[in-house]
Amino acid sequence: MRPGFTLLAGKFFDYSFEKLLPIAVALEIIHMATLVHDDVVDASLTRRGKPTLVASWGNEISVATGDYLLAKALEQIIKIDDKNLSAIIAKVCVDMCQGEIYQIKYSYDVKQNFKQYLYRINRKTALLFSLCCKLGAMACNADKRGIWIMKTYGHCLGIAFQIVDDILDITADPKILGKPVGSDVRQGIITLPMIFALQDPNIAERLSKLLALDRKTEEQVQEAVDLIKQSDGIAKSNDIVQKYIKKGIKNLSELPDIPAKDALIELAEFVGKRTY
Amino acid sequence: MRPGFTLLAGKFFDYSFEKLLPIAVALEIIHMATLVHDDVVDASLTRRGKPTLVASWGNEISVATGDYLLAKALEQIIKIDDKNLSAIIAKVCVDMCQGEIYQIKYSYDVKQNFKQYLYRINRKTALLFSLCCKLGAMACNADKRGIWIMKTYGHCLGIAFQIVDDILDITADPKILGKPVGSDVRQGIITLPMIFALQDPNIAERLSKLLALDRKTEEQVQEAVDLIKQSDGIAKSNDIVQKYIKKGIKNLSELPDIPAKDALIELAEFVGKRTY
Repeated sequence: MRPGFTLLAGKFFDYSFEKLLPIAVALEIIHMATLVHDDVVDASLTRRGKPTLVASWGNEISVATGDYLLAKALEQIIKIDDKNLSAIIAKVCVDMCQGEIYQIKYSYDVKQNFKQYLYRINRKTALLFSLCCKLGAMACNADKRGIWIMKTYGHCLGIAFQIVDDILDITADPKILGKPVGSDVRQGIITLPMIFALQDPNIAERLSKLLALDRKTEEQVQEAVDLIKQSDGIAKSNDIVQKYIKKGIKNLSELPDIPAKDALIELAEFVGKRTY
Repeated sequence: MRPGFTLLAGKFFDYSFEKLLPIAVALEIIHMATLVHDDVVDASLTRRGKPTLVASWGNEISVATGDYLLAKALEQIIKIDDKNLSAIIAKVCVDMCQGEIYQIKYSYDVKQNFKQYLYRINRKTALLFSLCCKLGAMACNADKRGIWIMKTYGHCLGIAFQIVDDILDITADPKILGKPVGSDVRQGIITLPMIFALQDPNIAERLSKLLALDRKTEEQVQEAVDLIKQSDGIAKSNDIVQKYIKKGIKNLSELPDIPAKDALIELAEFVGKRTY
């Protein structure tokens, strides 16, 4: 999806596949590397319905493979013929890592609010989405307004994508999702459905006690998931998703009606509706 | 030590601190990142006499911190005003990661020979030493011969440095070394002293059985360490170290007698003699 954004964004300006290719490849490899290292950090056993690298090969190979991917991304970044663009990628990589550390720092902290959650998922997901779109535009000589439009579209989709991810972690069918549900609860990551659920006075006390537990039994994880499902946390989170999706699509209105625009709208609608 | 090589190498040519700085900084940060991730992979508890990041903060923070350092290195690499140099760094990063994976692949394999060992430690250590020296020369407009001299000096020192590391892991006083001894034995990393010791028919059978054990008791680790110490593996390894140190120093003879040359010779002698 991410390199697709880069290529599509370029279509509205002086499209150059040659210029876009190393950018799109670098961004996808960076994303892959973060997935590999995230699975080490979270000790995740499945992703996309298949065993993770860490499940199959252990920590050693997985840390080394993630580093290998980052080195391959560096090779691509060097190929980008614009220092300005490479510097932007570097800055986002730094910010993403800070986001990861921030997430670990605030795990099990049930007093987080919506603003802190947004800050976290921006770094975790939206920055890279936004970067993919923005660089696609920049590499093809977009003007300031064009760059702003693509950047904002990517940001909206990234935020929506992560909130949907956090909803699915509570509500999804694990067979369709390709990974077990409740993993945020298990790892103490406080997500938007939880933040909303914690505002419900009928369950707040019990839920906050469960979520703050450093080690949870599977029964406690399931109890927390059930409490969140019973609350209006999912519905409220879905409302926020739809707000961001709408904003992302509306934002494209100034752009010419070319097939790439339909594709971006379709991608936005997919992000709002996906079940995996 | 590594950024020192870069700065010293530049002294023999059109020295420019401004040009050398981002290179030296990038290389040191890359080295730091590999240490942090290595300590995760090896579950090491101490380094340089202090608790490792992974011992103090756990896997999550350590993987993220290593990635953060790599991102900061990327920021520096972008600043290097010569695409050729950045591409060389990227290539070495890829090769180093391959070396790490190669080391994991061949752990507990007691049938390794000297050539395979050299291939492994080249990627693990000597490539980065060599790169530090080579880039210092290249950034300061050295001619082909000058670049070759610095690259070869760095390679010799890197190989010697790693063999000394592998000797110290058997012979050192853990208090002076700043980390526990026998960790290669424990992790199944087959080093040069072991390869030589395995050639001694009196201990070969017992030692190879011990080294190949996937999980070793502390008594078995100690027994293997003692067997290696009794053999001529340490002396033979030291001979190889001295050969590389001599070659590294001899290699500098063509260069003008400036203070930087004395410093490089001193560094080479230190690598050959260090006890920590």
